[in-house]
Amino acid sequence: MPASYAYLGPEGTFTEVALRTLPETATRQLIPYVSVQSALDAVRGGEAEAAFVPIENSVEGGITTTLDELVAGEPLMIYREVLLSITFALLVRPGTALSDIKTVSAHPAAQPQVRNWLKANLPEAVWESAASNADAARLVQEGRYDAAFAGEFAASRYGLAALETGIHDAENAQTRFVLVGRPARPAAPTGADKTSIVLWQRDDHPGGLRDLLGEFATRGINLMVLQSRPTGAGIGNYCFCIDAEGHITDRRVADALMGLKRICRDVRFLGSYPRANVTAADVPAPLTGTSDSAFVAAADWVARCQDGRF
Amino acid sequence: MPASYAYLGPEGTFTEVALRTLPETATRQLIPYVSVQSALDAVRGGEAEAAFVPIENSVEGGITTTLDELVAGEPLMIYREVLLSITFALLVRPGTALSDIKTVSAHPAAQPQVRNWLKANLPEAVWESAASNADAARLVQEGRYDAAFAGEFAASRYGLAALETGIHDAENAQTRFVLVGRPARPAAPTGADKTSIVLWQRDDHPGGLRDLLGEFATRGINLMVLQSRPTGAGIGNYCFCIDAEGHITDRRVADALMGLKRICRDVRFLGSYPRANVTAADVPAPLTGTSDSAFVAAADWVARCQDGRF
Amino acid sequence: MPASYAYLGPEGTFTEVALRTLPETATRQLIPYVSVQSALDAVRGGEAEAAFVPIENSVEGGITTTLDELVAGEPLMIYREVLLSITFALLVRPGTALSDIKTVSAHPAAQPQVRNWLKANLPEAVWESAASNADAARLVQEGRYDAAFAGEFAASRYGLAALETGIHDAENAQTRFVLVGRPARPAAPTGADKTSIVLWQRDDHPGGLRDLLGEFATRGINLMVLQSRPTGAGIGNYCFCIDAEGHITDRRVADALMGLKRICRDVRFLGSYPRANVTAADVPAPLTGTSDSAFVAAADWVARCQDGRF
Amino acid sequence: MPASYAYLGPEGTFTEVALRTLPETATRQLIPYVSVQSALDAVRGGEAEAAFVPIENSVEGGITTTLDELVAGEPLMIYREVLLSITFALLVRPGTALSDIKTVSAHPAAQPQVRNWLKANLPEAVWESAASNADAARLVQEGRYDAAFAGEFAASRYGLAALETGIHDAENAQTRFVLVGRPARPAAPTGADKTSIVLWQRDDHPGGLRDLLGEFATRGINLMVLQSRPTGAGIGNYCFCIDAEGHITDRRVADALMGLKRICRDVRFLGSYPRANVTAADVPAPLTGTSDSAFVAAADWVARCQDGRF
Repeated sequence: MPASYAYLGPEGTFTEVALRTLPETATRQLIPYVSVQSALDAVRGGEAEAAFVPIENSVEGGITTTLDELVAGEPLMIYREVLLSITFALLVRPGTALSDIKTVSAHPAAQPQVRNWLKANLPEAVWESAASNADAARLVQEGRYDAAFAGEFAASRYGLAALETGIHDAENAQTRFVLVGRPARPAAPTGADKTSIVLWQRDDHPGGLRDLLGEFATRGINLMVLQSRPTGAGIGNYCFCIDAEGHITDRRVADALMGLKRICRDVRFLGSYPRANVTAADVPAPLTGTSDSAFVAAADWVARCQDGRF
Repeated sequence: MPASYAYLGPEGTFTEVALRTLPETATRQLIPYVSVQSALDAVRGGEAEAAFVPIENSVEGGITTTLDELVAGEPLMIYREVLLSITFALLVRPGTALSDIKTVSAHPAAQPQVRNWLKANLPEAVWESAASNADAARLVQEGRYDAAFAGEFAASRYGLAALETGIHDAENAQTRFVLVGRPARPAAPTGADKTSIVLWQRDDHPGGLRDLLGEFATRGINLMVLQSRPTGAGIGNYCFCIDAEGHITDRRVADALMGLKRICRDVRFLGSYPRANVTAADVPAPLTGTSDSAFVAAADWVARCQDGRF
Repeated sequence: MPASYAYLGPEGTFTEVALRTLPETATRQLIPYVSVQSALDAVRGGEAEAAFVPIENSVEGGITTTLDELVAGEPLMIYREVLLSITFALLVRPGTALSDIKTVSAHPAAQPQVRNWLKANLPEAVWESAASNADAARLVQEGRYDAAFAGEFAASRYGLAALETGIHDAENAQTRFVLVGRPARPAAPTGADKTSIVLWQRDDHPGGLRDLLGEFATRGINLMVLQSRPTGAGIGNYCFCIDAEGHITDRRVADALMGLKRICRDVRFLGSYPRANVTAADVPAPLTGTSDSAFVAAADWVARCQDGRF
Repeated sequence: MPASYAYLGPEGTFTEVALRTLPETATRQLIPYVSVQSALDAVRGGEAEAAFVPIENSVEGGITTTLDELVAGEPLMIYREVLLSITFALLVRPGTALSDIKTVSAHPAAQPQVRNWLKANLPEAVWESAASNADAARLVQEGRYDAAFAGEFAASRYGLAALETGIHDAENAQTRFVLVGRPARPAAPTGADKTSIVLWQRDDHPGGLRDLLGEFATRGINLMVLQSRPTGAGIGNYCFCIDAEGHITDRRVADALMGLKRICRDVRFLGSYPRANVTAADVPAPLTGTSDSAFVAAADWVARCQDGRF
């Protein structure tokens, strides 16, 4: 029985398209789940080797369900990320003309991406939210709605025609997905990696968050994402989901994590994994004094000082 | 014709309850709108004096629609905030017993708050999402669903009975609402104020965000919220919505804003307004050297030095 | 009666040579004083318009007498600095050969500069300290010692011959002198200025000094000198003499001084004045966001926010 | 042959008194040297086990000869410090009355400490500088001067009487001495230790020095001394002599030194040794997150994350 990957279904969504960009999916069974939580629980329960879920979208921001599961659920780790550009096709039953469209449907997350197109091209159409873009396509197939916004790839699956493609209000609309598994040793660094963590501050005082970020800054580590999430202890209580450049086996990253672990109430490690669409050649060298060799040399020097030999 | 306040409708939701805690609503016409955007547009278009919308909830985090409108829409300002503790009642048609309930409905945002209660008390009930909790109550009244999770106050409006009250999975579940108007001079400081801004970094480098936060930290200003939002320029591009203690007419706050304005690509001022549920007596005095008088004395001293008299 | 400048005498020392590089000395009476303190007291007492004294030397460091007078004495201000490269001549009575020299004399501060030369060329000569290099030359003239290390310019004054010139152990040996007067409005900025201050910390805690320096760093201001001096309250109590780039009428400098004034126990302004040997063309433009115009724009923006017009 | 300690002579000075407070001097041969440099060279050359020299005085500041030898000379390490309160006695030949005193002598460093007393009690007396206070006493014994300022302990040695004792202009006048040896393993921590280092900045930019100090600040380490010294590369080039609390085997100190070693052009370790006049009971516990156990726990946690077990 092949290992299986859970993913946020249904079939025929951008999530599945993104998932299939991972080479190993050729040899995995891909199983759609109805929710992020159920996909992640499949991993926790051992039914799936990993789960593939959206974590962020360049228009709407962080996918809070995914973040909150990673922050507060039974520990999981991120092993891969995929970045997918999102453009929509307007899918209709073959033969439908633009002027025939009275109702359009899609997942609510699609709305900000197609709003301007709708205003310009179908100002009278009524919007009907669907559970997913694929579901909207299915409902068009069934005749319930006239048109669906979905990925062009969904047309063939549902016997629909793409009346228009490449629809996207925002330039650079992208969704970021992560492949999540049970905690294990992270893959070896590739030279273009990132590290995800969650921080809970020890107490709240002026400069508290600045000092946390200082643990990265003083080691020349760029942050890619900083996202606050409520801790559940009431308004005003947050933890911070952070993506930082580098791999936990990079000395400067390990050193920063040690500093954070000391000064934070808690730190959760969410994984070190290759950055999507970036290769080692694109990554600038660490600033002077923050390379692995600088760390090794400094540790060696301190050891010699402790010993009186220098 | 009395001035009117727009609010996120429909009637009978927590938003209306929160809005009615503002004394001046007694003399305002309160008009429900179908969306945050339409309520805010009513203000922008001059149809309403102000709009009352949720901005944050202690379980789900920031309300992104509201944040994104304040961040990127035509400029508005926050004049007031209200904090409301959220507990749900299970509303049914009179005569319905717990064992009769096969379907329950509420806005999806209610789900995380009632999940555990449902699992314990109605494990078999089917969840049906509604456009609002009030709408769920209406659908129960109409006989479409058996029970709705909504504020207890909605019972009488829809002729329902509260079979159970005080339902809340998370302790301290609260929603924060803001009253938003067109830009104008902020109300005078009360001694327990907060200031909301949006920051766009000039460029991204190690320590960039730390330095921004340093403008608050070095002036002893506590942050209450830091929420990143995508700028729309693709994954990895964020702006930061920040609530800081103090009023823009407090010298230390004005000074911090000046510093930020200099080092940021852009700063948007979203208002200085009284903190909900906090009075001046609860607010600790500024740290030494950050009081208004310390700022005045320092400015005076520098002026005298520039003049050679000291 | 022409205005007079006091200077650290006697005549014929490097101090006088440095003083005479100031154009206005052509129309001033130049009066030597026996000590830094007496020269500064002449200014305080109104006998002299200004005093010219050494403040730092690149081999020995800060001239503590001058620093301590500026730090703790009746307030004075620096109006000018002069940088003089120091090389020594070996002055002898005409006819003296190197092999005749049994005793050499100079001010003790000259010793580290000629030590290597002596070891190589006059290993047997006995060193005799003098009150000044000029005094050493006088004592050679009187026949008390065989040779003096002094500025070449002193030869003619004392009827001596320079047996060797250009003697200096350290490359780049320089002395920095300052022209000090009673407090008055500083001269207008030249574009290549520096500002001298003294800081006393409010209390001592981890990060205290870092935070003081942060007031410069966050405004992109380079430090040129940081010199600690005892406060007289016992070992472990220091104040800091700092030279920073820029003029007190530069907004970023004024802003940094305001910040320091607020967070320090005390700040003493010692003047803003042109940097020696540097012209405006050599000075890099302020970092983005720290120019005068950035400060003006930021202040204007905050004022408009306070007024609700933006 | 017993091991010997070199010290800055001559005999009968405060240095010798301070040295004799060290218990082990009972079994050491104490050998006076004519200069700090010669005493330190005796250690470097193996003639002496250690050298005892003044390093700082609360009135005049750092003893630059000592600092510069430790900074730039062949490496040595500090093993002990002694703090001595300095008050002077006025020593005269037996039978001399105050009104008989026409000339007074002492080392120039004594002058700031007795100036006020002289002005009040012997305003007409002529000051004659001596090579040391002990030498001044000897010259009084020989009848060359009428009175000497020296430690009271010098009276018996030179057959003089103390006409007045406890003379000191500055309250809390103290001199700090250090016992210096060849590099070797530092003594074990006592709980009340300090660590001395010299830092050379990699380059000079706004915030450079602040960042160096940040390596201490972020680990909650207090600085006791920060003294800049010229590097010899010309005016404007300095290194920094720093005394920080803690021992190099304290994790937070070792960690700070590693950080400095990475970001500095060079760091010289000058030793970790017990603080004079302070016991472990006087030393506050490290701030939360900076204790040895916090460092161990953090390193352990990172190792487990690297291994996927947490």
